[in-house]
Amino acid sequence: MIVSALLTSVGINTALCVLFFTLYSILRKQPSNYKVYIPRLLAEGASRTTPFNLKLLIPSPDWVAKAWSLTEEQLFSSSGLDALVFMRLITFSLKIFAFAGVIGIFVLLPVNCWGNQLQDIDILDFPGNSLDVFTISNVNSGSNWLWVHFFAVYAVSAFTCFQLHHEYKYIASKRISYFYSSKPQPHQFTVLVHSIPTSLSCSISDSVERFFKELYPSTYLSHVVIRRTNKIQALMSKSKNLYKRIAQLRANRTQQKYKHGGGVLGLFESKDSLIDHYGKKLEDIEEDVRLKQAEASLIAEEARAAFVFFKSRYAAATAFHLQPSVNPTQWITEPAPQPHDVYWPFFSESFMKQWISKLVVIVVCILFTILFLIPVVIVQGLTNLKQLEVLFPFLKSILAVKFVTQVITGYLPSLILQMSLKLVPPVMGFLSSIQGYISHSDIEMSASKKVQWFTVWNVFFATVFSGSVFHQVYIILDLKEITGQLAVAVPAQASFFITYVATTGWTSVSSELFQIIPLIVSLIKTPFTKQESEFEAPSMAYHRDLPRILFFGLLGISYFFLAPLILPFLLVYLCLAYIIYRNQFINVYTAKYETGGRFWPIVHDSMIFSLVLMQLIAVGSFALKKLSPASTWTLPLPVLTLTFNYYCRRRFLPIFTAYSAESLITKDREDENDSAMTEFYRQLLSVYKDPALFPIQHSSSSDSLVSPLLS
Amino acid sequence: MIVSALLTSVGINTALCVLFFTLYSILRKQPSNYKVYIPRLLAEGASRTTPFNLKLLIPSPDWVAKAWSLTEEQLFSSSGLDALVFMRLITFSLKIFAFAGVIGIFVLLPVNCWGNQLQDIDILDFPGNSLDVFTISNVNSGSNWLWVHFFAVYAVSAFTCFQLHHEYKYIASKRISYFYSSKPQPHQFTVLVHSIPTSLSCSISDSVERFFKELYPSTYLSHVVIRRTNKIQALMSKSKNLYKRIAQLRANRTQQKYKHGGGVLGLFESKDSLIDHYGKKLEDIEEDVRLKQAEASLIAEEARAAFVFFKSRYAAATAFHLQPSVNPTQWITEPAPQPHDVYWPFFSESFMKQWISKLVVIVVCILFTILFLIPVVIVQGLTNLKQLEVLFPFLKSILAVKFVTQVITGYLPSLILQMSLKLVPPVMGFLSSIQGYISHSDIEMSASKKVQWFTVWNVFFATVFSGSVFHQVYIILDLKEITGQLAVAVPAQASFFITYVATTGWTSVSSELFQIIPLIVSLIKTPFTKQESEFEAPSMAYHRDLPRILFFGLLGISYFFLAPLILPFLLVYLCLAYIIYRNQFINVYTAKYETGGRFWPIVHDSMIFSLVLMQLIAVGSFALKKLSPASTWTLPLPVLTLTFNYYCRRRFLPIFTAYSAESLITKDREDENDSAMTEFYRQLLSVYKDPALFPIQHSSSSDSLVSPLLS
Repeated sequence: MIVSALLTSVGINTALCVLFFTLYSILRKQPSNYKVYIPRLLAEGASRTTPFNLKLLIPSPDWVAKAWSLTEEQLFSSSGLDALVFMRLITFSLKIFAFAGVIGIFVLLPVNCWGNQLQDIDILDFPGNSLDVFTISNVNSGSNWLWVHFFAVYAVSAFTCFQLHHEYKYIASKRISYFYSSKPQPHQFTVLVHSIPTSLSCSISDSVERFFKELYPSTYLSHVVIRRTNKIQALMSKSKNLYKRIAQLRANRTQQKYKHGGGVLGLFESKDSLIDHYGKKLEDIEEDVRLKQAEASLIAEEARAAFVFFKSRYAAATAFHLQPSVNPTQWITEPAPQPHDVYWPFFSESFMKQWISKLVVIVVCILFTILFLIPVVIVQGLTNLKQLEVLFPFLKSILAVKFVTQVITGYLPSLILQMSLKLVPPVMGFLSSIQGYISHSDIEMSASKKVQWFTVWNVFFATVFSGSVFHQVYIILDLKEITGQLAVAVPAQASFFITYVATTGWTSVSSELFQIIPLIVSLIKTPFTKQESEFEAPSMAYHRDLPRILFFGLLGISYFFLAPLILPFLLVYLCLAYIIYRNQFINVYTAKYETGGRFWPIVHDSMIFSLVLMQLIAVGSFALKKLSPASTWTLPLPVLTLTFNYYCRRRFLPIFTAYSAESLITKDREDENDSAMTEFYRQLLSVYKDPALFPIQHSSSSDSLVSPLLS
Repeated sequence: MIVSALLTSVGINTALCVLFFTLYSILRKQPSNYKVYIPRLLAEGASRTTPFNLKLLIPSPDWVAKAWSLTEEQLFSSSGLDALVFMRLITFSLKIFAFAGVIGIFVLLPVNCWGNQLQDIDILDFPGNSLDVFTISNVNSGSNWLWVHFFAVYAVSAFTCFQLHHEYKYIASKRISYFYSSKPQPHQFTVLVHSIPTSLSCSISDSVERFFKELYPSTYLSHVVIRRTNKIQALMSKSKNLYKRIAQLRANRTQQKYKHGGGVLGLFESKDSLIDHYGKKLEDIEEDVRLKQAEASLIAEEARAAFVFFKSRYAAATAFHLQPSVNPTQWITEPAPQPHDVYWPFFSESFMKQWISKLVVIVVCILFTILFLIPVVIVQGLTNLKQLEVLFPFLKSILAVKFVTQVITGYLPSLILQMSLKLVPPVMGFLSSIQGYISHSDIEMSASKKVQWFTVWNVFFATVFSGSVFHQVYIILDLKEITGQLAVAVPAQASFFITYVATTGWTSVSSELFQIIPLIVSLIKTPFTKQESEFEAPSMAYHRDLPRILFFGLLGISYFFLAPLILPFLLVYLCLAYIIYRNQFINVYTAKYETGGRFWPIVHDSMIFSLVLMQLIAVGSFALKKLSPASTWTLPLPVLTLTFNYYCRRRFLPIFTAYSAESLITKDREDENDSAMTEFYRQLLSVYKDPALFPIQHSSSSDSLVSPLLS
């Protein structure tokens, strides 16, 4: 790729970013957009209207200042430890790439430009302004200047490991102090038991009671058996939809009445009868739900799972850590999730079905990964103009226009890729949800990992290896040649990934700020729903945003010594992300659950993977550049990095999987003399209740709308 | 290899076996060999002398009948669950290979002979009586007869998995019933804590007391801090050696006195002064030991580890399962080994040193594996006579003799391999002992795994791949070609491995029976040690015998459909092993420790590996034979096998890693009303004592020998 194409792409994206920022600065102040831009503040009770003012039409950057001035303590207290972990990932990446950026731009870039390898080879068709001049490809083979790259690799690896250790330690301490400062929470006293053996003589509930009372007579408190509610759930969602439709019809009628005075009576009547019809249907369904709910309390509807409550955190932890029954496939215990974090549909299916769906999910994941390659290959074709001309000869005249060429090579490829990648997080989230996790947080964590490996495989490896041949599986399976293959293929795609950062990266954060899709949805919906129906502020989709930032981290780490030019673009991206996500945490997202920082181990593992990949590329690159001592001396680096990772796993990971006996007992002792505990125990028994078993309640504000129709 | 070479080899080995059996039947009855052949019975108090009798010189097979009639209950009660597991491995293998043998000999062998692939190819230099006629190589390419092999592979895989499940279940139930029927044992109530943080203000002992009393006030009983005793250990072994030398000198003197009456007085005097000199030295050392032992009780000699005792098994298990401290690298708990199973030298080194030695052990293991290949390659060279003639032209005339040729190709190669393999178990045992395990049983389990993988790598893969080219690492790293490579290389070595079973296998069991090395040692020693010094019955070296049987299992499973001729030899081996090891458990070995059947998961994993390897070879073989549907339909088999293994890991493995809360609490409740528990608790505090801290005691019988010299 030539420099001007890159500049075109950067230009377009800078313009887009500025546009998005300006529009956001205006639109966010319009009361009609409050639901899109400050749903969190609205849910917390902010006023929904503001008197009209000229200022509302002038873009103002005050939100930047507000986001900037947010302290870590404020973020932690308002959005929880998970938001803090997310922001720490951004600052962590900023630190790493600032350090790598200084080395890259001021040391490696001049060294690269100084070489003349490419001029020697392509003396004839060397375009002069190719981006490759700035990459390691331009350093002469066997040149001692490569030792600079060698030391850079060591320095950045060491700095990253140091920072990783620092962050892990910091977040672990935050997690512990969060636990120490937390009030008694239901999930700390609860254990989920599943695979309860059935017996003919007594119900599940009785056998749970008997089993745990026998084992833990002094600490067992009570239990709640989970009911199979998939039918009720289906009915309830049906009734909800019907209710919405009635409300909509009703609203339309009022609107039209208001508009036309009292005319066109026939139309109203038909609408009235429709509302009447739906109303009756709704009544039937609700009756059905009530019947089914009553049935659910019968023994036949008991699932083979239960929440078991204990008198202390320590007792619950013991029940979870020790295998309860002699048969390890029965009475399986898991720590319970927070009550509002429970993924209830999980329990409705039988365990055999869950086991099968787990297998199916694995197969589907693999298929999805394979099929997804097709658009990526097409995208890769677009970056190669000559191929395109051969495939579609009629494009020749259009491709002759310089600007079109630059747009196609510089901008379009990553845009198409980005669009198709948008599909991945929801798909992976869905796949994880049928895989058998018991909580929303587990589902998001699992989806994060899936999305992350999907991206590494389908964006990184597919781009790197399909640029030359479309057989990355074979290449990766050939372990003895892998470093050499990487060293050849990875630098060749440097310009693509630089553009990728400037397009996908920059636009993804600015569209995050601008909330395009919610905005469009809101614009379409508003005319129909005049009434202020109740709404929930959205929660952060970590499985969408976390893997994206991690992937840019991977690109930065693996390309910093190959093509240091990527680093400035990455730093701009991270700065934008820093401000924008802080703003979103203030205004948009609420915390749906609190994992206590359990996302950090995912981040850590991903960074270690990036480091090792970069080091393997370095081994291959130095060998390719015929500086074999450097190649040999780089070999200890992945070993050292993996040893460091092994240490971190032993030192920090246990803190994230379970709390220690010391902290559990300390907290329990604190509560011992607390008189509020009796009340807490009383409440504990009722918090884990399947929402499908609550009586149907439509929002109170609009209830009055329908009631007269139905009565 | 030709059939006559195989027959020569089998002939030699049959003769050797008969010789060993006959000699054993005579020698075992001589009182002078009791120490070699019935040490266990001696240690249990059998009489050491028998009146001379002519019967003693006639070989009798009564021991075979005795070994045959031993029931499983008798074996279990006399030698423990580990011996039972070992014998179950042999009967399990017998079952598998009897089943495979019936299919192999009566179905596959005729099919193989029926083909004429080899005649077609090597019409000119086909020797006619080559063993290859009996292998799959002789089946015609693309022949539908290969479907017979296909179904055989499925049948044997299914039968093996069925048997594996059955055995795992049986041994798991044995383990649980062993636990339920066991008396209170010290290690059930004990936890080993290491990495105790040091503090300036108080001793290790005090901080252990404080920490556990704080955490578990109601169940904590007491503790014993471990002392650094490496210096004392060194001194003690020095004193022991010195003592032995004195005893020897003294014995010689008495003998000579007896022989020569009172003559050659000068010689006696010099000996006397030598004894005197050594005696004084011994006295000095013993004084030193006493001093050091007194010092060991000081705070400065405390190691950062302790045994902590609890009032119940459940409390100890809880302390082990829950991470005790907030910092996961401090106060690390492990279940304690049995008191006589503790590997005390472990505690003497600092934990940093242990960490380094762990890394060193890994490196040494790799180096050992690489260097070991050299003799294996030489051995491989010997099987190829033409190579040998080229290398050593002077051998030509010798190699012309037919018998020499047959000995060299049929017998010598495996003998050399076997001799060098004898070194491996002790080396691996030593390496495991410095790797940081706290008990002899853990060391043996780790060494078993090491020896096993070493054998698979250095005997199986090295033979299979160095037969063609010496680069198995490269071949195995090339994952995409691996099944094809295996399918080419593995059948080519069929004749080598058939001979291997008949030589290494048969001679190894008969030399196990004959106890060659202990016999030789005893023959050399006897003249010098007339006095009956105390001795211990040896214990079974599982890390030597278990991997050997597992390796024969691997050979049997992977070759059964390629070269069914291997199965009769294997069955003979297993029958011999069945009788001989039973005999050895009755007469020779005592149980040093009881792991409760924890060796079985190693057996299970090894069998699964063998199955998957065989299935991959099958995939490659069918592809190579141009019957691709069979190759494709074999592919699900490894997936199914691994799924089965995954199920077994979930269903049975947890039973072998820890006891369930249910069983622990049941056992604790049984003891609650037992009055003997107070006495047990009292004893508990003194059983974990480093032998280096016991006062020096030489065997009482010979103590009188030295005392007059020293006084």
